[in-house]
Amino acid sequence: MRCRKCDERAVINMRHHKLSLCGDHYGEWFVAQIERAIEKYKMFTRDERILVAVSGGKDSLSLWDVLLRLGYQADGMYIGLGINTPIPYSDASLEMTRKFLARGGWRESGGDGDSVTSNVTPYTPFLHVVDVPEVYGKSIPEISRAKMRGQGRPCAACGLTKRYVMNRLAHERGYAVLATGHNLDDEVAVLFQNTLRWQTGYLARQAPTLPASHEGLVRKVKPLCRMYERETATYAVVRGIDYIYDECPHAAGNQMNFHKTLLNQLETESPGAKLSFYLEFLRARGEGAFDQFNETVELHACEICGQPTTAPGRCAFCRMWDVSAIVQ
Amino acid sequence: MRCRKCDERAVINMRHHKLSLCGDHYGEWFVAQIERAIEKYKMFTRDERILVAVSGGKDSLSLWDVLLRLGYQADGMYIGLGINTPIPYSDASLEMTRKFLARGGWRESGGDGDSVTSNVTPYTPFLHVVDVPEVYGKSIPEISRAKMRGQGRPCAACGLTKRYVMNRLAHERGYAVLATGHNLDDEVAVLFQNTLRWQTGYLARQAPTLPASHEGLVRKVKPLCRMYERETATYAVVRGIDYIYDECPHAAGNQMNFHKTLLNQLETESPGAKLSFYLEFLRARGEGAFDQFNETVELHACEICGQPTTAPGRCAFCRMWDVSAIVQ
Repeated sequence: MRCRKCDERAVINMRHHKLSLCGDHYGEWFVAQIERAIEKYKMFTRDERILVAVSGGKDSLSLWDVLLRLGYQADGMYIGLGINTPIPYSDASLEMTRKFLARGGWRESGGDGDSVTSNVTPYTPFLHVVDVPEVYGKSIPEISRAKMRGQGRPCAACGLTKRYVMNRLAHERGYAVLATGHNLDDEVAVLFQNTLRWQTGYLARQAPTLPASHEGLVRKVKPLCRMYERETATYAVVRGIDYIYDECPHAAGNQMNFHKTLLNQLETESPGAKLSFYLEFLRARGEGAFDQFNETVELHACEICGQPTTAPGRCAFCRMWDVSAIVQ
Repeated sequence: MRCRKCDERAVINMRHHKLSLCGDHYGEWFVAQIERAIEKYKMFTRDERILVAVSGGKDSLSLWDVLLRLGYQADGMYIGLGINTPIPYSDASLEMTRKFLARGGWRESGGDGDSVTSNVTPYTPFLHVVDVPEVYGKSIPEISRAKMRGQGRPCAACGLTKRYVMNRLAHERGYAVLATGHNLDDEVAVLFQNTLRWQTGYLARQAPTLPASHEGLVRKVKPLCRMYERETATYAVVRGIDYIYDECPHAAGNQMNFHKTLLNQLETESPGAKLSFYLEFLRARGEGAFDQFNETVELHACEICGQPTTAPGRCAFCRMWDVSAIVQ
């Protein structure tokens, strides 16, 4: 397989786009795709400060790399969840993130052929690290065991904690927007799950850009939402980004992964099926299919931490973590 | 496994309902479910004449049986498609249909235990047979080869022909409603297909009851839409209804069947997943999710046959079949 642009050996063949590219041209193409998504979905501008939620995985590190290459003011935030059994998942993730930062690969010009970075003023990124066990006294598996009576996975506690910490830090440090590395496969799995039960409220809110609907909340964006997982992995490899291959040990065998397996069969049978499922959903949503399910909820300030919440007293985070005074 | 009602050996275990039943109680339960669907979706009343599209398969024969047991004025219509290679599919289907009618099983009272038929005035059903090769001069495979230049399956030509013939006969013979044997698995496969591409126009029109939107069109209903394929098959077996097991030879390996395989995996992993996908869709649709996509199309009378059509001149049926004078 040859690169369509230069006849070099291709590193990827994207059947859904009928496009094969070599490493250099693929890197350029990928960056251009992300820039296009940022503009199309009005995610942010070069004047805004962006906080990227980084996990040490291929998606978030690739996203950070692309934003920095494009000259965006993108800082990172790593949340240490304290998940280190049976594998040192959290420790290894932080290490990968620090390595990415130390290496500074986004500063390197690709030479004559690199049309991405040539006109860009380099930005020096900062990495925020919030270690949950250190700040809140327990790891995610520990708080989950304590609060969920040992039932089920810690994923609910983890999701709640991450959303809280991310939004709070982004808002308090004056970031305009929080960017996450969700790829197309992630978005499609969520969409599939919501569609199977026709959860119209969730469908109404699933979008590449979620505006800050309330004081204290920041805008949320997913610039990789149109890129297949395989595409972000290939980008990371092409760019020499070292990332953590392991999935969170608690995610193995969950329903989301079961749905991903089904969706992969669909994609194999009909290349581009996931992309069209997602894009056609956005079209239908844009045409108002779920507008009437977009409730405007009343938000109050949590009596402990002051963060916006639907609950009248303490927010779900402060309740779960038994926070009785503001932790800074 | 024992029947929940009488402790006899169960013939079916419905995990999604957490219900096991013996043959007799299953038959009763099945009929009650259909009666409930007929009422819930306002399909028809006992004063209306119903035309059931029968194919000789388990779904349509079970449906006809249930309607007759419930005392509805239900006649049948069999459309001979001339599909007899590589297996005598059409001939065998008609034979099964005639056998069902000759046997008259719906007239038999189930004895003391049969709460279904005891209060019902028996209706003597009539079977309309429309043989396509005889009336229109070509079998479905022949017209498809002639018109589609030998490309693809004859399913499109078949669907168009059946819809036309069914609606026309129902309307001309004064039936209020056309009932088809689509089961839950069928409906879910179509819903899945439409959802994968968010075909909002189709989603807006997918319902258990489609009102007659125009003079010349009859109401269309699907009383089995909430019953799994396995459930209608079990009903046919329990009732001693002999039906054609073969699928149409042209359907093998089509996309719909591929989707059905995926959906079966989902159902195995999570019993009731199909039912909730369908019912929650109906809820969302009922709450107006797709109302704005429900176009009111202008219909004209076809210049040849007079049937309602969107085309200004000849309808799609008359064009495909090169009809130049009305065939009665």
